[in-house]
Amino acid sequence: MKTRVGILGYGNLGRGIECSLKQNDDMELVAVFTRRNPDTVKILTEGVKVYHVDDAPKMKDDIDVMILCGGSATDLPEQTKEYAKYFTVVDSFDTHAKIPEHFENVDKAATENGNVAVISAGWDPGMFSINRLYGNAILPQGKDYTFWGKGVSQGHSDAIRRVEGVANGKQYTVPIDAALEAVRSGANPELTTREKHLRECYVVAEEGADLAKIEAEIKNMPNYFADYDTTVTFITEEELQRDHAGIPHGGFVIRSGKTGWNGENTHIIEYSLKLDSNPEFTASVIVACARAAVRMKKEGMKGCKTIFDIPPAYLSAVDGAELRKALL
Amino acid sequence: MKTRVGILGYGNLGRGIECSLKQNDDMELVAVFTRRNPDTVKILTEGVKVYHVDDAPKMKDDIDVMILCGGSATDLPEQTKEYAKYFTVVDSFDTHAKIPEHFENVDKAATENGNVAVISAGWDPGMFSINRLYGNAILPQGKDYTFWGKGVSQGHSDAIRRVEGVANGKQYTVPIDAALEAVRSGANPELTTREKHLRECYVVAEEGADLAKIEAEIKNMPNYFADYDTTVTFITEEELQRDHAGIPHGGFVIRSGKTGWNGENTHIIEYSLKLDSNPEFTASVIVACARAAVRMKKEGMKGCKTIFDIPPAYLSAVDGAELRKALL
Repeated sequence: MKTRVGILGYGNLGRGIECSLKQNDDMELVAVFTRRNPDTVKILTEGVKVYHVDDAPKMKDDIDVMILCGGSATDLPEQTKEYAKYFTVVDSFDTHAKIPEHFENVDKAATENGNVAVISAGWDPGMFSINRLYGNAILPQGKDYTFWGKGVSQGHSDAIRRVEGVANGKQYTVPIDAALEAVRSGANPELTTREKHLRECYVVAEEGADLAKIEAEIKNMPNYFADYDTTVTFITEEELQRDHAGIPHGGFVIRSGKTGWNGENTHIIEYSLKLDSNPEFTASVIVACARAAVRMKKEGMKGCKTIFDIPPAYLSAVDGAELRKALL
Repeated sequence: MKTRVGILGYGNLGRGIECSLKQNDDMELVAVFTRRNPDTVKILTEGVKVYHVDDAPKMKDDIDVMILCGGSATDLPEQTKEYAKYFTVVDSFDTHAKIPEHFENVDKAATENGNVAVISAGWDPGMFSINRLYGNAILPQGKDYTFWGKGVSQGHSDAIRRVEGVANGKQYTVPIDAALEAVRSGANPELTTREKHLRECYVVAEEGADLAKIEAEIKNMPNYFADYDTTVTFITEEELQRDHAGIPHGGFVIRSGKTGWNGENTHIIEYSLKLDSNPEFTASVIVACARAAVRMKKEGMKGCKTIFDIPPAYLSAVDGAELRKALL
């Protein structure tokens, strides 16, 4: 029998989950839940219904795992602990500083109701976190480096669009090659914010806007751009749609460490992602975690879990003996 | 209380374990076991005794985990199932084709005696395997690529040294850049053996030996070299000792996969290692697995496990809350 999956929230991430489920024969989408009027939400999968989110709890026996696709700022802090009362759930909560608090809240709800809740699934937090953990565990005498990009930062793109005179815009975070090479050399450099990443802005100005003023305002914006070398390129809306429509992302996690009786040998562990679609890749990680969550629940576990707690084999649809034969 | 570790077999790997334990404050080396006369084995750690291997079973209450550092060809197939009767054990069994058989044998012994046995810890099998598994679970529509090197292959170096007229020699396996780049492009190329790796041989000839004959014999050696582009460079024993004394290794695991409703987006996951010392890095992975094995045993688990079965957090000495805060 297939694992029955619900999706709560149908934006880019929800659609990514839907696409990922199509690739996984052991799982099937059984319902999508939305806060909008369900009649206005068209999904890709034939024969699957869209419900209002208020109907979700009634369907708790029809769904093995509910994937929560809301945002981390305001949706997930409320939703995950709420739906963990009824379902095995997975979310992609990505506000790093608030993970401990979110974990506690969700753990309480999931434990009290005998459910498993996997939080912060995706790639950072997620696969990048796992690689930081493996790197630290294997090479305790070492240093971590995480670089992001080249990719679109939603928060920085939003910040650009709030500048007066800006009609539209997109921001790419770009890791700086010289910094990456210094890390890969094993030199364990101390890198400033400016040395690690630069920020490329593509901006569509409103007609008659003062371009020099826009550029200065962006480059000097505190928190977002002031600490970085930032480029501002003005383009037309047409060019923006043609050349910058995608949502690529990626990055690098590098652990540089020493071994030997006197630390005489250097080792570099590097994990990198190059993603055409940030939400679709995030969704693919979440779906694998959903499989694991269902298995953990079946084994009698309960409470909040993260990808740190999931035996890698649980993410796969393939059984242990076959995994050992084919992949070990 | 620290985790008490025994090392069985004191060659390059055993010494690597000893060095790694020095870096991990939650663990301590309590005994080294050897098949040689213990008086002839000098170890690095002060105050730790070397025993004959026959004395190991008597010390089963003094050791929390025994790390087996024998070879995969003849030692481990006998040793791991034998010592799993008395101890929680970890080995680095790396004959991929025989892992299922080894697993069965060890699982029986460990289960019958209530112990945990982690087999095939290291980097391939080991960290490379985990990355193949994660890649397959996350991107089910995709293709795996594993490249090895640049690094020393012991088996190929031995093969060179068996050629008539050869006094000494070392072989490096080298991944071919063009193949790596083709994979990273997302093109999912079909690559022949010759296209993926080349083999660099550094050979010290005996005085008066026929160099052309040696070179031809190496390059045409079936299984080892005939299917590869192979270079043979003659050097002196001095040069070999000066320039080729290390045991570096490494490699790349790449998963190239598609997502989207019609597979329209490409993603590249790449994991790579650049290791100054193959045995010391392998040892570092084993020690982290030893920590996990002890924890699994304490939780009441038993039987044979691989790195696929180990929740990543179990590899770390840091507790769950701190891991979530610092690394998630």
